[in-house]
Amino acid sequence: MDRMSHISQLAMTSPGRIVMVVMDGLGGLPHPDTGQTELETARTPNLDRMAREGICGLSDPLGPGLTPGSGPGHLGLFGYDPFAFVIGRGVLEALGIDFPLEPGDVAARGNFCSVDENGLITDRRAGRISTEVCVQLCQELGRITLPGVKALVAAVEGHRFLLVLRGAGLSAELGDSDPQKLGVAPKKVEPLAGAAGPTAAAVNEWVGRAGAVLAGHHPANMVVLRGFSQRPLLPSMGELFKLDPVAIAAYPMYRGLARLVGMKVVSCGRELAEEFASLEKLYPGHDFLFLHVKKTDSAGEDGDFARKVKAIEEVDGLMPRITALHPDVIVVTGDHSTPAVMKAHSWHPVPFLLSSPLCRPDEATEFSERACARGGLGRFPALDIMPLALAHAQKLGKYGA
Amino acid sequence: MDRMSHISQLAMTSPGRIVMVVMDGLGGLPHPDTGQTELETARTPNLDRMAREGICGLSDPLGPGLTPGSGPGHLGLFGYDPFAFVIGRGVLEALGIDFPLEPGDVAARGNFCSVDENGLITDRRAGRISTEVCVQLCQELGRITLPGVKALVAAVEGHRFLLVLRGAGLSAELGDSDPQKLGVAPKKVEPLAGAAGPTAAAVNEWVGRAGAVLAGHHPANMVVLRGFSQRPLLPSMGELFKLDPVAIAAYPMYRGLARLVGMKVVSCGRELAEEFASLEKLYPGHDFLFLHVKKTDSAGEDGDFARKVKAIEEVDGLMPRITALHPDVIVVTGDHSTPAVMKAHSWHPVPFLLSSPLCRPDEATEFSERACARGGLGRFPALDIMPLALAHAQKLGKYGA
Repeated sequence: MDRMSHISQLAMTSPGRIVMVVMDGLGGLPHPDTGQTELETARTPNLDRMAREGICGLSDPLGPGLTPGSGPGHLGLFGYDPFAFVIGRGVLEALGIDFPLEPGDVAARGNFCSVDENGLITDRRAGRISTEVCVQLCQELGRITLPGVKALVAAVEGHRFLLVLRGAGLSAELGDSDPQKLGVAPKKVEPLAGAAGPTAAAVNEWVGRAGAVLAGHHPANMVVLRGFSQRPLLPSMGELFKLDPVAIAAYPMYRGLARLVGMKVVSCGRELAEEFASLEKLYPGHDFLFLHVKKTDSAGEDGDFARKVKAIEEVDGLMPRITALHPDVIVVTGDHSTPAVMKAHSWHPVPFLLSSPLCRPDEATEFSERACARGGLGRFPALDIMPLALAHAQKLGKYGA
Repeated sequence: MDRMSHISQLAMTSPGRIVMVVMDGLGGLPHPDTGQTELETARTPNLDRMAREGICGLSDPLGPGLTPGSGPGHLGLFGYDPFAFVIGRGVLEALGIDFPLEPGDVAARGNFCSVDENGLITDRRAGRISTEVCVQLCQELGRITLPGVKALVAAVEGHRFLLVLRGAGLSAELGDSDPQKLGVAPKKVEPLAGAAGPTAAAVNEWVGRAGAVLAGHHPANMVVLRGFSQRPLLPSMGELFKLDPVAIAAYPMYRGLARLVGMKVVSCGRELAEEFASLEKLYPGHDFLFLHVKKTDSAGEDGDFARKVKAIEEVDGLMPRITALHPDVIVVTGDHSTPAVMKAHSWHPVPFLLSSPLCRPDEATEFSERACARGGLGRFPALDIMPLALAHAQKLGKYGA
């Protein structure tokens, strides 16, 4: 029996409540001028107090040296082995916009892009067109019909859209059409398995027709597709951990991910304060509340050190609204590191803080990468986070007599 | 899919360069007079600076309590699970002298030894005969013919030689003849599997004939054999990690090990300064350079604390020749511990240092066992070293969307 099954068998309902605050891309690297990371630079009196009273550590989302995408990063936090459960980009996009994926549907992430007169990509994001334009173009693309296969198109946001193929015997074993670079044409979609030939042909026909539809719509005069995938079957957090979980996430992909593991997902505003207000409202009705903060990652990806510092400080300022609820466990961490100096996700382990009346405090006196490195939890795999949270909320029984 | 396959799928070529300096047997234990280990005693200003700017930890070659031989120790450093890939001593010796092992060949490490009139071993190294004498005796042994099996003999160095049996249906499932102690006779080689009977018989016949040939050659009047093995099939570091690696190692076994994982191997002088000069010359042409230092282990094995300290200081003095090349990643570590007070390999975890502009510095202010124990990498399996080095050289892609 694997570890997940053991934990699942020990899980039990209890009145305890767990709040998990995920600052996306939280981990950082020192600013060259100061030698301090984003989290070390931020003034975080509330998180520092929680670190003093709680227990800290550094968690590895996938293992030393491995950089996770958002999907694997969150799966690990929720207690699912990211190597055992693989979620394609297309499926994530679908879930994030509440698109009702049916079993067998093949989903792909689409970008509107700009191509020149030779069909070579000049802008992978079509000058970041507005969501309004995206919605309108998706309506036009939605009129394309293929023999034997339904091609559904849904706008996501800005230049991003979702393509879903629905029909009998479709396969998601397809290569991307998105070459992820400029100056080349979109690739023909290749079947990666024998049975995927007809699906590849259908996608390529759709792409050709989409190009014709978009011809006059520069800068959005072409599309690229990637992450063809089908919805994986995951046991829900309810089944696995006997939890009644809810997700508070402003950004579509994280709502989609939460839905995939069986969390209830609520709509809430884009502002952090609105997310925290949602949490307060939902608190009495759930025993696991996941709150996702996107700003930290966006700032890191943009290389904006100061904005990431500010986002962390904003979260810190709102933390008293959670501590005032007196949950049995508060976890504060990230799904991965996104150091502003790298402008990208990275492999660096992630600061982790668990606050609970039942935790054995360590010597960490503030919430920072350096303090977490000396924390009582040491360096540990992110897959240990759920068992730790459940245990501190007295939701895990004893193993063996 | 196992972890190695995941890492292999994420590996990508990049301009980044990795230098891995392995001080064999680096880890130590405190000198009873001073309470300081060899590394703590050594004056190492360059390594200390690298530790201050880089990230440190303690690595377990096989896991807590497990003492590795040179083969498993190095396999782990190169990213290969030492429990999954087993390399016999005979094969290592063969590779180290460029002996062209063919598939199915059975190789054994041989020692010339001294036996008394009763056939009991009085010196397991035959008074450490010169390599010249070894070469001459190996020529005589090479004339022994067996029915259906070729017995090839090659001198290695001093009292050490290589025996290779070549023929159809040979098995390496054989016990050693070397009892590894004095006052007893060499053991009869036993088959450890049913199918190994004929090979055992052939070896025992060869040993008998060798004894006859050597009868008049005291102190080298007998042989003992150990480590019967066949060449394992390992994917190369090129295939696995998309690297173009080169090994700089004065000592044959380490060259052999490097060759087994597909490294280019160059001849170089025995002096440390010659190894470092080789590295400088090879640097532009490779993206992974492995430099092996034998002196630290030899001194440890001899129980010579002061000589091990001096060897470490010598490496420290040469480190600026590597830092001046500005590789993206420098790793300094050992393949295992060889505390001088134990005169043997040990299970103690090994000081590890990674220096890179992308590492998140920790609070280690010097390179020592104690500082590494507090390092940001914590205590970790040696198998994580390659993913860490690849990540910091930006040679590992992101996992998942």
